[in-house]
Amino acid sequence: MIRLLVTSPLSADFALPLDDGQSRYLTQVMRKGVGDEVLVFNGVDGEWQCVIEQVGKRFVILRTQAQTRPQTPKPNLILLIALIKRGRLETVVEKASELGAAEVWPVVTERASVERAREDRLRLIANEAAEQTGRVDTPAIRPTAKLDRVLADWDRTWPQGRKLLFCDEAGDAGMAADVLATQVPGPWAILVGPEGGFSPGERARLRALPFSVPVTLGPRILRADTAAISAMTLWQAALGDWLPVA
Amino acid sequence: MIRLLVTSPLSADFALPLDDGQSRYLTQVMRKGVGDEVLVFNGVDGEWQCVIEQVGKRFVILRTQAQTRPQTPKPNLILLIALIKRGRLETVVEKASELGAAEVWPVVTERASVERAREDRLRLIANEAAEQTGRVDTPAIRPTAKLDRVLADWDRTWPQGRKLLFCDEAGDAGMAADVLATQVPGPWAILVGPEGGFSPGERARLRALPFSVPVTLGPRILRADTAAISAMTLWQAALGDWLPVA
Repeated sequence: MIRLLVTSPLSADFALPLDDGQSRYLTQVMRKGVGDEVLVFNGVDGEWQCVIEQVGKRFVILRTQAQTRPQTPKPNLILLIALIKRGRLETVVEKASELGAAEVWPVVTERASVERAREDRLRLIANEAAEQTGRVDTPAIRPTAKLDRVLADWDRTWPQGRKLLFCDEAGDAGMAADVLATQVPGPWAILVGPEGGFSPGERARLRALPFSVPVTLGPRILRADTAAISAMTLWQAALGDWLPVA
Repeated sequence: MIRLLVTSPLSADFALPLDDGQSRYLTQVMRKGVGDEVLVFNGVDGEWQCVIEQVGKRFVILRTQAQTRPQTPKPNLILLIALIKRGRLETVVEKASELGAAEVWPVVTERASVERAREDRLRLIANEAAEQTGRVDTPAIRPTAKLDRVLADWDRTWPQGRKLLFCDEAGDAGMAADVLATQVPGPWAILVGPEGGFSPGERARLRALPFSVPVTLGPRILRADTAAISAMTLWQAALGDWLPVA
Protein backbone atom coordinates (compact mmCIF):
# COMPACT_ATOMS: atom_id res chain seq x y z
CA MET A 1 0.00 0.00 0.00
CA ILE A 2 1.30 3.46 -0.98
CA ARG A 3 1.96 5.83 1.94
CA LEU A 4 2.36 9.57 1.54
CA LEU A 5 3.61 12.20 3.96
CA VAL A 6 1.38 15.27 3.62
CA THR A 7 1.32 18.71 5.22
CA SER A 8 -2.45 19.21 5.62
CA PRO A 9 -4.32 18.45 8.83
CA LEU A 10 -6.13 15.11 8.71
CA SER A 11 -9.58 14.21 9.99
CA ALA A 12 -12.54 12.17 8.77
CA ASP A 13 -14.14 12.92 5.39
CA PHE A 14 -11.60 15.58 4.53
CA ALA A 15 -10.76 16.57 0.92
CA LEU A 16 -7.01 16.53 0.54
CA PRO A 17 -5.35 18.06 -2.52
CA LEU A 18 -1.91 16.60 -3.19
CA ASP A 19 1.02 18.64 -4.41
CA ASP A 20 2.29 18.38 -7.95
CA GLY A 21 5.04 15.86 -7.25
CA GLN A 22 2.86 13.49 -5.24
CA SER A 23 0.05 13.79 -7.79
CA ARG A 24 2.36 12.79 -10.61
CA TYR A 25 3.88 9.99 -8.53
CA LEU A 26 0.44 8.52 -7.81
CA THR A 27 -0.98 8.72 -11.31
CA GLN A 28 2.05 8.43 -13.59
CA VAL A 29 4.55 6.32 -11.65
CA MET A 30 2.17 4.14 -9.63
CA ARG A 31 -0.68 4.24 -12.22
CA LYS A 32 -3.36 4.89 -9.63
CA GLY A 33 -6.77 6.37 -10.48
CA VAL A 34 -10.11 7.38 -9.00
CA GLY A 35 -11.29 4.90 -6.36
CA ASP A 36 -7.84 3.55 -5.50
CA GLU A 37 -6.72 3.60 -1.87
CA VAL A 38 -3.72 5.37 -0.36
CA LEU A 39 -2.43 5.84 3.19
CA VAL A 40 -1.40 9.31 4.36
CA PHE A 41 0.17 10.74 7.52
CA ASN A 42 1.31 14.21 8.55
CA GLY A 43 3.32 13.63 11.72
CA VAL A 44 0.49 14.85 13.96
CA ASP A 45 -2.83 13.15 13.25
CA GLY A 46 -1.85 9.50 12.84
CA GLU A 47 -2.26 7.53 9.62
CA TRP A 48 -5.42 7.73 7.48
CA GLN A 49 -6.80 5.62 4.72
CA CYS A 50 -7.88 7.72 1.74
CA VAL A 51 -9.55 7.16 -1.59
CA ILE A 52 -8.55 8.98 -4.74
CA GLU A 53 -11.58 11.19 -5.40
CA GLN A 54 -10.51 13.26 -8.36
CA VAL A 55 -7.63 13.16 -10.85
CA GLY A 56 -6.84 16.24 -12.92
CA LYS A 57 -4.09 16.97 -15.37
CA ARG A 58 -1.71 18.15 -12.67
CA PHE A 59 -3.50 17.43 -9.42
CA VAL A 60 -5.06 14.67 -7.37
CA ILE A 61 -7.61 15.09 -4.62
CA LEU A 62 -7.88 12.41 -1.95
CA ARG A 63 -10.70 11.97 0.53
CA THR A 64 -9.86 10.70 4.00
CA GLN A 65 -11.90 7.74 5.22
CA ALA A 66 -10.80 6.17 8.48
CA GLN A 67 -7.80 6.56 10.76
CA THR A 68 -5.76 3.37 10.39
CA ARG A 69 -3.25 4.14 13.12
CA PRO A 70 -3.11 6.70 15.94
CA GLN A 71 -0.22 9.11 16.28
CA THR A 72 2.42 7.46 18.46
CA PRO A 73 5.26 9.32 20.18
CA LYS A 74 8.65 9.23 18.42
CA PRO A 75 11.53 7.56 20.19
CA ASN A 76 13.28 10.50 21.88
CA LEU A 77 16.49 9.99 19.92
CA ILE A 78 18.58 12.54 18.03
CA LEU A 79 21.42 11.41 15.79
CA LEU A 80 24.36 13.81 15.68
CA ILE A 81 26.36 12.81 12.63
CA ALA A 82 29.62 14.44 11.61
CA LEU A 83 29.73 15.68 8.02
CA ILE A 84 30.83 12.79 5.84
CA LYS A 85 30.74 12.21 2.08
CA ARG A 86 27.37 12.88 0.52
CA GLY A 87 26.41 9.32 -0.40
CA ARG A 88 27.23 8.00 3.05
CA LEU A 89 25.47 10.90 4.79
CA GLU A 90 22.38 10.21 2.72
CA THR A 91 22.53 6.53 3.71
CA VAL A 92 22.71 7.56 7.37
CA VAL A 93 19.64 9.80 7.03
CA GLU A 94 17.65 7.06 5.28
CA LYS A 95 18.60 4.57 8.00
CA ALA A 96 17.88 7.05 10.82
CA SER A 97 14.37 7.37 9.38
CA GLU A 98 13.93 3.58 9.21
CA LEU A 99 15.36 3.12 12.70
CA GLY A 100 12.99 5.65 14.21
CA ALA A 101 15.21 8.61 15.10
CA ALA A 102 13.27 11.80 15.90
CA GLU A 103 15.92 14.13 14.46
CA VAL A 104 19.17 14.07 12.54
CA TRP A 105 21.62 16.87 13.19
CA PRO A 106 24.67 17.15 10.90
CA VAL A 107 27.61 18.55 12.87
CA VAL A 108 30.92 20.01 11.79
CA THR A 109 33.88 18.47 13.57
CA GLU A 110 37.56 19.38 13.38
CA ARG A 111 38.44 16.57 11.00
CA ALA A 112 35.31 16.75 8.84
CA SER A 113 36.26 16.01 5.23
CA VAL A 114 33.19 17.81 3.86
CA GLU A 115 32.18 21.45 4.11
CA ARG A 116 28.43 21.37 4.28
CA ALA A 117 25.29 19.23 4.04
CA ARG A 118 22.37 19.85 1.71
CA GLU A 119 19.62 19.78 4.30
CA ASP A 120 16.84 20.13 1.70
CA ARG A 121 18.00 16.97 -0.02
CA LEU A 122 18.39 15.16 3.33
CA ARG A 123 14.81 16.14 4.22
CA LEU A 124 13.52 14.54 1.00
CA ILE A 125 15.42 11.34 1.77
CA ALA A 126 14.17 11.26 5.37
CA ASN A 127 10.57 11.79 4.23
CA GLU A 128 10.70 9.15 1.52
CA ALA A 129 12.18 6.65 3.96
CA ALA A 130 9.47 7.54 6.50
CA GLU A 131 6.78 6.81 3.90
CA GLN A 132 8.26 3.41 3.19
CA THR A 133 9.15 2.35 6.71
CA GLY A 134 5.62 2.81 8.04
CA ARG A 135 6.23 5.43 10.73
CA VAL A 136 3.58 8.10 11.36
CA ASP A 137 6.10 10.93 11.50
CA THR A 138 9.38 11.89 9.85
CA PRO A 139 12.74 12.77 11.35
CA ALA A 140 13.51 16.47 11.44
CA ILE A 141 16.78 17.51 9.81
CA ARG A 142 18.37 20.30 11.83
CA PRO A 143 20.52 22.90 10.09
CA THR A 144 24.19 21.89 10.22
CA ALA A 145 26.00 23.30 13.26
CA LYS A 146 29.48 23.19 14.74
CA LEU A 147 29.91 20.38 17.23
CA ASP A 148 31.62 22.76 19.67
CA ARG A 149 28.58 25.02 19.64
CA VAL A 150 26.12 22.15 20.00
CA LEU A 151 27.99 20.92 23.07
CA ALA A 152 28.33 24.44 24.56
CA ASP A 153 24.58 25.04 24.12
CA TRP A 154 23.50 21.55 25.27
CA ASP A 155 21.78 22.57 28.52
CA ARG A 156 20.09 25.55 26.88
CA THR A 157 18.88 23.42 23.93
CA TRP A 158 17.58 20.66 26.19
CA PRO A 159 16.92 22.15 29.64
CA GLN A 160 15.17 18.91 30.66
CA GLY A 161 18.46 17.10 30.05
CA ARG A 162 19.57 14.74 27.30
CA LYS A 163 22.18 11.99 27.49
CA LEU A 164 24.77 11.61 24.75
CA LEU A 165 25.87 8.17 23.56
CA PHE A 166 29.37 9.04 22.38
CA CYS A 167 30.63 6.47 19.85
CA ASP A 168 34.28 6.65 20.80
CA GLU A 169 36.41 4.89 18.22
CA ALA A 170 39.44 4.86 20.54
CA GLY A 171 38.11 1.59 21.92
CA ASP A 172 38.74 1.83 25.66
CA ALA A 173 35.12 2.57 26.62
CA GLY A 174 32.72 -0.24 27.50
CA MET A 175 30.94 -2.18 24.76
CA ALA A 176 27.79 -0.35 23.65
CA ALA A 177 25.27 -3.08 24.47
CA ASP A 178 26.68 -3.59 27.98
CA VAL A 179 26.78 0.13 28.73
CA LEU A 180 23.26 0.66 27.37
CA ALA A 181 21.96 -2.15 29.61
CA THR A 182 22.86 0.02 32.64
CA GLN A 183 21.06 3.12 31.33
CA VAL A 184 17.43 4.23 31.53
CA PRO A 185 15.06 5.39 28.77
CA GLY A 186 14.59 9.12 28.26
CA PRO A 187 15.91 11.81 25.92
CA TRP A 188 19.09 10.63 24.20
CA ALA A 189 21.41 11.68 21.42
CA ILE A 190 23.95 9.50 19.58
CA LEU A 191 27.16 11.10 18.30
CA VAL A 192 29.11 9.51 15.43
CA GLY A 193 32.33 11.10 14.19
CA PRO A 194 33.78 11.52 10.71
CA GLU A 195 35.96 8.94 8.90
CA GLY A 196 39.07 10.60 10.34
CA GLY A 197 37.75 10.34 13.89
CA PHE A 198 37.58 13.04 16.54
CA SER A 199 40.61 15.19 17.35
CA PRO A 200 42.29 14.54 20.73
CA GLY A 201 40.84 17.83 21.99
CA GLU A 202 37.30 16.95 20.91
CA ARG A 203 37.63 13.50 22.40
CA ALA A 204 38.86 14.79 25.77
CA ARG A 205 36.02 17.29 25.89
CA LEU A 206 33.43 14.67 24.92
CA ARG A 207 34.63 12.27 27.59
CA ALA A 208 34.52 14.95 30.28
CA LEU A 209 30.96 16.13 29.64
CA PRO A 210 28.61 15.13 32.49
CA PHE A 211 25.88 14.00 30.07
CA SER A 212 28.22 11.96 27.86
CA VAL A 213 28.24 8.13 27.91
CA PRO A 214 31.19 6.85 25.84
CA VAL A 215 30.86 3.43 24.21
CA THR A 216 32.80 1.13 21.90
CA LEU A 217 31.25 -0.53 18.85
CA GLY A 218 33.17 -3.80 18.63
CA PRO A 219 36.79 -4.61 17.89
CA ARG A 220 36.86 -3.49 14.24
CA ILE A 221 37.03 0.01 12.76
CA LEU A 222 33.58 0.94 11.46
CA ARG A 223 32.82 3.47 8.80
CA ALA A 224 30.69 6.35 10.03
CA ASP A 225 27.52 5.07 8.33
CA THR A 226 27.93 1.61 9.86
CA ALA A 227 28.64 3.07 13.31
CA ALA A 228 25.48 5.20 13.11
CA ILE A 229 23.27 2.26 12.10
CA SER A 230 24.76 -0.10 14.68
CA ALA A 231 24.49 2.46 17.49
CA MET A 232 20.87 3.32 16.65
CA THR A 233 20.02 -0.41 16.53
CA LEU A 234 21.56 -1.10 19.94
CA TRP A 235 19.89 1.99 21.44
CA GLN A 236 16.49 0.94 20.08
CA ALA A 237 16.95 -2.59 21.42
CA ALA A 238 17.97 -1.39 24.89
CA LEU A 239 16.06 1.86 25.45
CA GLY A 240 13.79 2.51 22.48
CA ASP A 241 10.73 0.97 20.89
CA TRP A 242 12.21 -2.39 19.84
CA LEU A 243 10.48 -3.83 22.85
CA PRO A 244 9.10 -7.34 23.22
CA VAL A 245 5.87 -7.80 21.26
CA ALA A 246 3.02 -7.70 23.78
CA MET B 1 48.35 3.08 8.29
CA ILE B 2 47.72 1.32 4.96
CA ARG B 3 46.60 -2.32 5.25
CA LEU B 4 46.70 -4.74 2.34
CA LEU B 5 45.17 -8.18 1.94
CA VAL B 6 47.71 -10.40 0.18
CA THR B 7 47.70 -14.01 -1.02
CA SER B 8 51.30 -15.00 -0.13
CA PRO B 9 52.23 -16.78 3.07
CA LEU B 10 53.67 -14.43 5.68
CA SER B 11 56.59 -14.96 8.02
CA ALA B 12 59.52 -12.92 9.30
CA ASP B 13 61.99 -11.37 6.84
CA PHE B 14 60.03 -12.48 3.79
CA ALA B 15 60.21 -10.69 0.41
CA LEU B 16 56.67 -10.05 -0.75
CA PRO B 17 55.96 -8.94 -4.33
CA LEU B 18 52.66 -7.08 -4.66
CA ASP B 19 50.34 -7.48 -7.60
CA ASP B 20 49.98 -4.78 -10.22
CA GLY B 21 46.89 -3.14 -8.70
CA GLN B 22 48.27 -2.98 -5.17
CA SER B 23 51.64 -1.73 -6.44
CA ARG B 24 50.00 1.12 -8.31
CA TYR B 25 47.73 1.90 -5.35
CA LEU B 26 50.72 2.16 -3.01
CA THR B 27 52.97 4.24 -5.23
CA GLN B 28 50.60 6.29 -7.38
CA VAL B 29 47.50 6.75 -5.21
CA MET B 30 49.08 6.76 -1.76
CA ARG B 31 52.46 8.16 -2.91
CA LYS B 32 54.47 5.67 -0.87
CA GLY B 33 58.11 4.87 -1.60
CA VAL B 34 61.08 2.80 -0.44
CA GLY B 35 61.31 2.72 3.35
CA ASP B 36 57.64 3.45 4.00
CA GLU B 37 55.68 1.07 6.21
CA VAL B 38 52.59 -0.96 5.34
CA LEU B 39 50.54 -3.58 7.18
CA VAL B 40 49.61 -6.82 5.40
CA PHE B 41 47.45 -9.85 6.25
CA ASN B 42 46.45 -12.97 4.34
CA GLY B 43 43.68 -14.49 6.43
CA VAL B 44 45.98 -17.16 7.89
CA ASP B 45 49.17 -15.74 9.35
CA GLY B 46 47.95 -12.71 11.28
CA GLU B 47 48.96 -9.14 10.48
CA TRP B 48 52.54 -8.14 9.63
CA GLN B 49 54.33 -4.87 9.46
CA CYS B 50 56.32 -4.50 6.24
CA VAL B 51 58.68 -1.99 4.70
CA ILE B 52 58.69 -1.11 1.03
CA GLU B 53 61.99 -2.56 -0.16
CA GLN B 54 61.90 -1.97 -3.88
CA VAL B 55 59.74 0.07 -6.26
CA GLY B 56 59.81 -0.70 -9.98
CA LYS B 57 57.80 0.68 -12.86
CA ARG B 58 54.97 -1.77 -12.36
CA PHE B 59 55.83 -3.61 -9.17
CA VAL B 60 56.55 -3.15 -5.49
CA ILE B 61 58.37 -5.56 -3.21
CA LEU B 62 57.70 -5.43 0.52
CA ARG B 63 59.78 -7.05 3.24
CA THR B 64 57.99 -8.38 6.30
CA GLN B 65 59.35 -7.24 9.64
CA ALA B 66 57.32 -8.18 12.71
CA GLN B 67 53.91 -9.72 13.30
CA THR B 68 51.74 -6.94 14.68
CA ARG B 69 48.70 -9.12 15.47
CA PRO B 70 48.13 -12.87 15.65
CA GLN B 71 45.51 -14.60 13.55
CA THR B 72 42.25 -14.62 15.52
CA PRO B 73 39.27 -16.85 14.75
CA LYS B 74 36.45 -15.28 12.75
CA PRO B 75 33.06 -14.99 14.40
CA ASN B 76 31.25 -18.10 13.14
CA LEU B 77 28.60 -16.10 11.33
CA ILE B 78 27.31 -16.48 7.78
CA LEU B 79 25.03 -13.87 6.28
CA LEU B 80 22.46 -15.27 3.84
CA ILE B 81 21.19 -12.29 1.90
CA ALA B 82 18.45 -12.46 -0.71
CA LEU B 83 19.36 -10.94 -4.06
CA ILE B 84 18.55 -7.23 -3.92
CA LYS B 85 19.51 -4.28 -6.11
CA ARG B 86 23.21 -4.05 -6.82
CA GLY B 87 24.01 -0.94 -4.81
CA ARG B 88 22.24 -2.20 -1.72
CA LEU B 89 23.79 -5.67 -2.04
CA GLU B 90 27.23 -4.08 -2.24
CA THR B 91 26.46 -2.04 0.89
CA VAL B 92 25.48 -5.24 2.69
CA VAL B 93 28.75 -6.95 1.72
CA GLU B 94 30.82 -3.95 2.83
CA LYS B 95 28.99 -3.89 6.17
CA ALA B 96 29.24 -7.68 6.64
CA SER B 97 32.98 -7.28 6.30
CA GLU B 98 33.08 -4.43 8.85
CA LEU B 99 30.80 -6.31 11.23
CA GLY B 100 32.98 -9.43 11.16
CA ALA B 101 30.89 -11.98 9.23
CA ALA B 102 32.88 -15.04 8.13
CA GLU B 103 30.92 -15.51 4.89
CA VAL B 104 28.26 -13.84 2.78
CA TRP B 105 26.02 -16.11 0.73
CA PRO B 106 23.67 -14.46 -1.80
CA VAL B 107 20.50 -16.52 -2.10
CA VAL B 108 17.71 -16.53 -4.67
CA THR B 109 14.25 -16.30 -3.12
CA GLU B 110 10.85 -16.49 -4.81
CA ARG B 111 10.33 -12.73 -4.78
CA ALA B 112 13.88 -11.73 -5.62
CA SER B 113 13.81 -8.66 -7.86
CA VAL B 114 17.27 -9.35 -9.24
CA GLU B 115 18.56 -12.28 -11.28
CA ARG B 116 22.13 -12.69 -10.18
CA ALA B 117 24.97 -11.29 -8.12
CA ARG B 118 28.43 -10.44 -9.44
CA GLU B 119 30.42 -12.42 -6.92
CA ASP B 120 33.78 -11.21 -8.27
CA ARG B 121 32.78 -7.60 -7.61
CA LEU B 122 31.40 -8.50 -4.16
CA ARG B 123 34.73 -10.16 -3.33
CA LEU B 124 36.60 -6.96 -4.16
CA ILE B 125 34.25 -4.96 -1.94
CA ALA B 126 34.57 -7.44 0.93
CA ASN B 127 38.37 -7.41 0.67
CA GLU B 128 38.65 -3.63 0.54
CA ALA B 129 36.37 -3.31 3.55
CA ALA B 130 38.45 -5.94 5.39
CA GLU B 131 41.61 -3.91 4.73
CA GLN B 132 40.01 -0.80 6.18
CA THR B 133 38.18 -2.32 9.11
CA GLY B 134 41.28 -3.89 10.61
CA ARG B 135 40.29 -7.57 10.56
CA VAL B 136 42.96 -10.20 9.87
CA ASP B 137 40.78 -12.12 7.43
CA THR B 138 38.14 -11.39 4.82
CA PRO B 139 34.61 -12.72 4.44
CA ALA B 140 34.24 -15.41 1.80
CA ILE B 141 31.58 -14.75 -0.84
CA ARG B 142 29.82 -18.00 -1.71
CA PRO B 143 28.44 -18.51 -5.22
CA THR B 144 24.76 -17.52 -5.36
CA ALA B 145 22.40 -20.42 -4.65
CA LYS B 146 18.68 -20.97 -4.41
CA LEU B 147 17.36 -20.56 -0.88
CA ASP B 148 15.35 -23.79 -1.22
CA ARG B 149 18.50 -25.71 -2.01
CA VAL B 150 20.50 -24.09 0.80
CA LEU B 151 17.81 -25.09 3.30
CA ALA B 152 17.47 -28.63 1.88
CA ASP B 153 21.25 -29.13 2.10
CA TRP B 154 21.66 -27.46 5.52
CA ASP B 155 22.60 -30.57 7.51
CA ARG B 156 24.94 -31.80 4.78
CA THR B 157 26.60 -28.38 4.47
CA TRP B 158 27.03 -28.02 8.23
CA PRO B 159 26.97 -31.50 9.79
CA GLN B 160 28.08 -29.98 13.12
CA GLY B 161 24.88 -27.91 13.10
CA ARG B 162 24.26 -24.23 12.51
CA LYS B 163 21.42 -22.09 13.83
CA LEU B 164 19.57 -19.71 11.53
CA LEU B 165 18.47 -16.29 12.75
CA PHE B 166 15.47 -15.78 10.47
CA CYS B 167 14.64 -12.07 10.14
CA ASP B 168 10.89 -12.47 9.77
CA GLU B 169 9.30 -9.23 8.62
CA ALA B 170 5.81 -10.48 9.51
CA GLY B 171 6.44 -9.13 12.99
CA ASP B 172 4.91 -11.75 15.27
CA ALA B 173 8.23 -13.31 16.34
CA GLY B 174 10.04 -12.11 19.45
CA MET B 175 12.24 -9.01 19.29
CA ALA B 176 15.72 -9.91 18.08
CA ALA B 177 17.68 -8.72 21.13
CA ASP B 178 15.38 -10.58 23.54
CA VAL B 179 15.49 -13.80 21.54
CA LEU B 180 19.27 -13.62 21.11
CA ALA B 181 19.67 -13.19 24.87
CA THR B 182 18.28 -16.73 25.31
CA GLN B 183 20.65 -18.30 22.75
CA VAL B 184 24.21 -19.59 23.05
CA PRO B 185 27.30 -18.83 20.95
CA GLY B 186 28.25 -21.26 18.20
CA PRO B 187 27.83 -21.53 14.43
CA TRP B 188 25.08 -19.19 13.23
CA ALA B 189 23.64 -17.84 10.01
CA ILE B 190 21.44 -14.77 9.56
CA LEU B 191 18.83 -14.77 6.79
CA VAL B 192 17.51 -11.49 5.38
CA GLY B 193 14.87 -11.48 2.65
CA PRO B 194 14.37 -9.30 -0.42
CA GLU B 195 12.47 -5.98 -0.48
CA GLY B 196 9.27 -7.85 -1.36
CA GLY B 197 9.62 -10.19 1.59
CA PHE B 198 9.42 -13.96 1.67
CA SER B 199 6.50 -15.79 0.04
CA PRO B 200 3.98 -17.41 2.41
CA GLY B 201 5.39 -20.82 1.43
CA GLU B 202 8.98 -19.79 2.15
CA ARG B 203 7.95 -18.25 5.44
CA ALA B 204 6.04 -21.34 6.60
CA ARG B 205 9.00 -23.53 5.71
CA LEU B 206 11.48 -21.22 7.44
CA ARG B 207 9.44 -21.12 10.61
CA ALA B 208 9.12 -24.91 10.71
CA LEU B 209 12.84 -25.71 10.36
CA PRO B 210 14.29 -27.12 13.58
CA PHE B 211 17.42 -24.93 13.34
CA SER B 212 15.51 -21.71 12.61
CA VAL B 213 15.11 -18.95 15.20
CA PRO B 214 12.63 -16.33 13.90
CA VAL B 215 13.02 -12.76 15.14
CA THR B 216 11.50 -9.32 14.61
CA LEU B 217 13.59 -6.21 13.99
CA GLY B 218 11.48 -3.48 15.57
CA PRO B 219 8.08 -2.03 14.70
CA ARG B 220 9.03 -0.40 11.39
CA ILE B 221 9.58 -1.94 7.97
CA LEU B 222 13.32 -2.09 7.29
CA ARG B 223 14.98 -2.21 3.91
CA ALA B 224 17.01 -5.36 3.37
CA ASP B 225 20.34 -3.59 3.84
CA THR B 226 19.23 -2.05 7.14
CA ALA B 227 17.85 -5.37 8.37
CA ALA B 228 21.14 -7.11 7.58
CA ILE B 229 23.24 -4.49 9.41
CA SER B 230 20.91 -4.36 12.43
CA ALA B 231 20.74 -8.15 12.72
CA MET B 232 24.52 -8.57 12.46
CA THR B 233 24.99 -5.84 15.10
CA LEU B 234 22.60 -7.48 17.56
CA TRP B 235 24.14 -10.93 16.93
CA GLN B 236 27.64 -9.57 17.54
CA ALA B 237 26.51 -7.84 20.73
CA ALA B 238 24.78 -10.97 22.08
CA LEU B 239 26.81 -13.92 20.77
CA GLY B 240 29.80 -12.61 18.82
CA ASP B 241 32.99 -10.71 19.52
CA TRP B 242 31.49 -7.40 20.67
CA LEU B 243 32.27 -8.59 24.17
CA PRO B 244 33.15 -6.39 27.14
CA VAL B 245 36.72 -5.09 26.89
CA ALA B 246 38.79 -7.15 29.33
